[in-house]
Amino acid sequence: MNFELTFLGTNSALPAHGRFPTAQVLAIQEQLFLIDCGEGTQARMLDFHVKRHKINQIFISHLHGDHVFGLIGLLTTLNLMGRQHQLEVFSPAGLEEVIQIQLKASQTQLGYPLVFHVTDTSRFQLIFENETVAVYTIPLLHRIPTNGFLFREKQRDLNILPEKIEEYQLSVPQILKAKEGKDITLEDGRTIDNNELTRMPPLPRSYAYCSDTLYTESILSYIKGVDLLYHESTFLHDDQQRARETMHSTAYEAATIAKQAAVKMLFLGHYSTRHKDVNVFEEEAQSIFPKARAAREGMRVSIPFHHEAEEIRITWKDPG
Amino acid sequence: MNFELTFLGTNSALPAHGRFPTAQVLAIQEQLFLIDCGEGTQARMLDFHVKRHKINQIFISHLHGDHVFGLIGLLTTLNLMGRQHQLEVFSPAGLEEVIQIQLKASQTQLGYPLVFHVTDTSRFQLIFENETVAVYTIPLLHRIPTNGFLFREKQRDLNILPEKIEEYQLSVPQILKAKEGKDITLEDGRTIDNNELTRMPPLPRSYAYCSDTLYTESILSYIKGVDLLYHESTFLHDDQQRARETMHSTAYEAATIAKQAAVKMLFLGHYSTRHKDVNVFEEEAQSIFPKARAAREGMRVSIPFHHEAEEIRITWKDPG
Repeated sequence: MNFELTFLGTNSALPAHGRFPTAQVLAIQEQLFLIDCGEGTQARMLDFHVKRHKINQIFISHLHGDHVFGLIGLLTTLNLMGRQHQLEVFSPAGLEEVIQIQLKASQTQLGYPLVFHVTDTSRFQLIFENETVAVYTIPLLHRIPTNGFLFREKQRDLNILPEKIEEYQLSVPQILKAKEGKDITLEDGRTIDNNELTRMPPLPRSYAYCSDTLYTESILSYIKGVDLLYHESTFLHDDQQRARETMHSTAYEAATIAKQAAVKMLFLGHYSTRHKDVNVFEEEAQSIFPKARAAREGMRVSIPFHHEAEEIRITWKDPG
Repeated sequence: MNFELTFLGTNSALPAHGRFPTAQVLAIQEQLFLIDCGEGTQARMLDFHVKRHKINQIFISHLHGDHVFGLIGLLTTLNLMGRQHQLEVFSPAGLEEVIQIQLKASQTQLGYPLVFHVTDTSRFQLIFENETVAVYTIPLLHRIPTNGFLFREKQRDLNILPEKIEEYQLSVPQILKAKEGKDITLEDGRTIDNNELTRMPPLPRSYAYCSDTLYTESILSYIKGVDLLYHESTFLHDDQQRARETMHSTAYEAATIAKQAAVKMLFLGHYSTRHKDVNVFEEEAQSIFPKARAAREGMRVSIPFHHEAEEIRITWKDPG
């Protein structure tokens, strides 16, 4: 019952200093969701042992190359690996044409159904859901149409206590009813209060991905209280003017958003190449919001199942 | 006066086993020529300290993704780095549309002139020349239109002997005439034989790039006697049937071509991912043509200026 985010690329614009363009993989209960796909994403997946064939949905925030140039390579590699099951791509308008012209130029016919969904970058909107998770767009402010994504686990049914099933000899229909929160009437006419039969399940976990964007408080209502927030911080606050001009954010601004949204933890990324050391982003953000961390290639962030009680776990080995 | 080839990617189809899709850089007298550009080429350029901004011509053999998916990333990175001088791309038809649609989707306007030249994959044809080098297409046989490239240094002028300039007090016009191979008539009426005044310059160096292709002896006349031949060897000869079907070559076949063309040295590459160890390709080829080597990422091959007398130098540090 994992909920684990892996950073594959944390640099902005281009590869530099051992960092790569944006890509992340979110694993929720054995389902893998790819978020953005900069050039070299498939190679990073090999480096960090991401099971590429387990990805069924890909979410692209916008069509700047550092978020999407790796997609065509991944799609054709999955084809070469013999993929047959459907793959869905969610992105702002224009991506399907970009992919199709490249498949046509190489005379490649994919052996699996590839379905494109166009997102409306101006709205907070449910774009995908299954039994375990719902995904929403988050409208962002950037130079071209851009949206972030909110991943929210579904609320689980109540946990029924095994000893109560035994005690009252509950039938399957009674158990299902109790899990929905209802009281149970036994054959002898007694009514058992639901509180006696069940316990609250763990709370749904959530992750909000916000890149690329100008600082904007318009996103606060969508990301309020999420467990994890990734917010781009291309620049330090010294460069706020440049952030404005290029419609990016500073580490200070990302931390301000995290604080106002009262998220559990903030991760920074999309660093400007002018900074070789990304600790400076972390330090700046922590001055506002102590639970801020600089994302690194290969860093894994895991939210425990019982995350009300347990800490978010971060696994990362500094390569050098 | 260098002539140095650097292998950036030696795998076929996709990244695997620490190998990457095809890309090479040929440096001739401080000019850099990029040959094919698989995904991640710009990152390999960082790894191996290739000066990206010095590339003015890019040669793409065909539009299969493992030879071209890295191009858009490189082009936009050069733009971000502030490039202003012209870049030329030579390739079979269709590439310009692929690049333009991606620039349009990301609303990117390049700050430098980007000129596309379409190659005729059915002909051996001069496609580029300047003072030092001429580049020709080599028709290849593959599943889509494909050509290799022949790089040939221009023949240099004769070397005039300094002591003869002194002895006969030669004027600049006389020196230039002598360098063209002509005899010189002095003011006193004596005629000096050109053989007394000059020595032969080093022979022009040459490199033939042949990927991807079915085994074909039709290329022999174009590559005869080159210093370096790169010939794809996707498979071992055990897999000859599969090589036929996919229109690729085996190491045995690459070596047979090298032997028949009497090249100085053969490099193999475009290895099938089913082989983790590429020494098997080298061993198979060496059984036919001893001067065969398996290309590796980061391997540099340098042809000395006086290569009639000196050995081709290979620099490579096994990372593992």
